[in-house]
Amino acid sequence: MKEITLDVRGMSCGHCVNAIEGSVGELQGVRHVKVDLQKAQLSLSYDESAVSLSEIQEAIEDQGYEVA
Amino acid sequence: MKEITLDVRGMSCGHCVNAIEGSVGELQGVRHVKVDLQKAQLSLSYDESAVSLSEIQEAIEDQGYEVA
Repeated sequence: MKEITLDVRGMSCGHCVNAIEGSVGELQGVRHVKVDLQKAQLSLSYDESAVSLSEIQEAIEDQGYEVA
Repeated sequence: MKEITLDVRGMSCGHCVNAIEGSVGELQGVRHVKVDLQKAQLSLSYDESAVSLSEIQEAIEDQGYEVA
């Protein structure tokens, strides 16, 4: 498992947290998804053999947020 | 029908708009519910014989927002 922290723009409220944690958390191989609203960051662990970083970024962008 | 505009604190994104427009719009006697995020305002029309202003405010606060 690889641990990463991404800067994500546009997250502003609890609904945003739920939307991102929910959609990223549903990806196979992703664990421990956590948004920090104050820091505008998303941290997670992922299994590189199951999911790619670009798939994770796509899931975030599909919800309407921008990975900085 | 009475037309009002309320100042609402805490609305920050499209999810907030949907949460408020949805819950207030479901109240009997309420029509034309519209959030303006930039102005932090909610405008609507309501039938005073069907719903009270305090019921409208409660619906907003139940979603986690504050009527200023």
